[in-house]
Amino acid sequence: MSAVAPAELGPRMWREIREQPDVLRRLLLDGREAIDRVAAAIRDYAPRFAVLVARGTSDHAAAYGKYLLETRLGVPASLAAPSTTTLYHSRPRLDRVLYIAISQSGESPDVVLPTRQAAGSGALTVAITNQNQSPLSAVAAHTLQIMAGEEKAVAATKSYTASLLTLFLLIEAVAGRDAREANDLPQRCTQLLDRQEALEQIALRYRDAEQILITSRGYNEATAREAALKLVEGARIPAVGFSGADLLHGPIAMVERGFPVIAFIPPEAGGRAMGSVVESLLARAVDLLLLGPQHGPAGTTTVLLPDMRPEYLSPVLAIVPFQILALSLGRLRGYDPDRPAGLAKVTRTL
Amino acid sequence: MSAVAPAELGPRMWREIREQPDVLRRLLLDGREAIDRVAAAIRDYAPRFAVLVARGTSDHAAAYGKYLLETRLGVPASLAAPSTTTLYHSRPRLDRVLYIAISQSGESPDVVLPTRQAAGSGALTVAITNQNQSPLSAVAAHTLQIMAGEEKAVAATKSYTASLLTLFLLIEAVAGRDAREANDLPQRCTQLLDRQEALEQIALRYRDAEQILITSRGYNEATAREAALKLVEGARIPAVGFSGADLLHGPIAMVERGFPVIAFIPPEAGGRAMGSVVESLLARAVDLLLLGPQHGPAGTTTVLLPDMRPEYLSPVLAIVPFQILALSLGRLRGYDPDRPAGLAKVTRTL
Repeated sequence: MSAVAPAELGPRMWREIREQPDVLRRLLLDGREAIDRVAAAIRDYAPRFAVLVARGTSDHAAAYGKYLLETRLGVPASLAAPSTTTLYHSRPRLDRVLYIAISQSGESPDVVLPTRQAAGSGALTVAITNQNQSPLSAVAAHTLQIMAGEEKAVAATKSYTASLLTLFLLIEAVAGRDAREANDLPQRCTQLLDRQEALEQIALRYRDAEQILITSRGYNEATAREAALKLVEGARIPAVGFSGADLLHGPIAMVERGFPVIAFIPPEAGGRAMGSVVESLLARAVDLLLLGPQHGPAGTTTVLLPDMRPEYLSPVLAIVPFQILALSLGRLRGYDPDRPAGLAKVTRTL
Repeated sequence: MSAVAPAELGPRMWREIREQPDVLRRLLLDGREAIDRVAAAIRDYAPRFAVLVARGTSDHAAAYGKYLLETRLGVPASLAAPSTTTLYHSRPRLDRVLYIAISQSGESPDVVLPTRQAAGSGALTVAITNQNQSPLSAVAAHTLQIMAGEEKAVAATKSYTASLLTLFLLIEAVAGRDAREANDLPQRCTQLLDRQEALEQIALRYRDAEQILITSRGYNEATAREAALKLVEGARIPAVGFSGADLLHGPIAMVERGFPVIAFIPPEAGGRAMGSVVESLLARAVDLLLLGPQHGPAGTTTVLLPDMRPEYLSPVLAIVPFQILALSLGRLRGYDPDRPAGLAKVTRTL
């Protein structure tokens, strides 16, 4: 517990959450030229397959990137298991492979080493990072700066949404589309920040929670996993995130009456597919909170959120309420979300 | 709670756990011909990339398959996100892609549909299933029967180890190796079953546990995730599994003094890489149980297990102690591990 008044805890995280509309706006205005240049290089290379390598929050951005690559570009994509390189020294053939490395700091050796090796195995390597003078940008053929500005809080927020938007703009540019549906993201992000009070109220429900399960689907499986990590880092609550489909294939047996579950209901197909997940959760009488555009069935509490269509772009917005919830909850529990116990801003694993 | 005496709970799961040496032996003796035939077809096809599709326990087998494909065959491999097909109707080009579908029942639509579509998009499709007369085998170009015999318990055990061994034998055959190091798996599995009493004793530690974190690394990330699912299904304990490297990139913040953590220490490189994970966990004073070949540092409890080298084959054995632990713990807690609340043997999601 801290002696600082709760509302003053986590000032860095809070500032960085609020910077997100500006970060997104900067990327939309000033980031396009570099993105278009890299997109042209990718089109020339004509990748048959993509691999994304990342850890932690950036790995959740990678999960979104995989969906975009497959659904928006028709290129099958894999999330790398860095250990196959760093522990087992495998050297797969990677010609015609687009290799995207995502790292805020550009420093984690288990992202840098596989990228260096991929570059030497025929892949076209692209670094997506907040540091364009980093070990990662030194080994990648191309670097895209996410333009998030310095991120000081250990719990990544603005670097996550900036990575998502960079991935979206890049993949749309490769596909030859103009991505105009991203243009109002900054303004829509501001609207979400305006839900702060409602989210602080909701945080009270979880003040004494011993664990929380978070679920969503499709593009927003990334949101569920990243939201869980924010609750872990910001509020030290054991939280896990699952795709709703994966949940029904076993892990749902972990929840029983009263277990706190938060479901993000995406727009469009993902939202419709969440119907059976919500039903199964209600059949177990869990303590169910829905975040979505309309009220849920009897027995649920809903935080109404603005429309987030199109679904394929919704993860850029959907994480914001969870960031606010994690920060509010950390404050309520007396933790400093800027200093998660024992975590450093840059983690070095092999 | 059940009126049945605890030792009688979960008779199906217990029988199926004990059948594993026989299942592995059958596969080694009678499964090779089909495996060699499919391996020859894969060699002719000369895949550039592999995709594995599965849900639940089979998805953990797929995670092992990804490691094998990359490290033992040098073919980059991806775990499919079925939603990209079932929700978003993406149709990536899949020529020169080896598409492996893993499903005990061969029935889940979100495994069958993507496989059917992959077959129509140029991929070479291989079904690994316990049911060679199933919707999955009907759509796949090749079917490998895992020969596990009927599996009645909802918590999959023998079908998991049989799927792992099938993947190993197949990939070694494609690589032109004889896989002789698998020959003594049945006998080594029996030795592990003989650790039953020690594991029942250890289960007492977790009788009142409210959550458990499981971790390992590399090939055995699959073990950590599958072990967690067994504890969820068999003992209704919220349990999650992480690779040790992923854990250090954030989720470790969820554990504090006294939090129950079980770490499986693999042989060879994965075991060495677990050193820093164990250190970080001890720095948080968690309640740490190690499963491995030697005693851990001060402050840990160890269940000594027989040598499991080579590391790339260890997941076939490493899950067995966790299966026994999950069953024992379910019994202690008075749950019937054969009937996890609200789960069916075959889950149908889209």
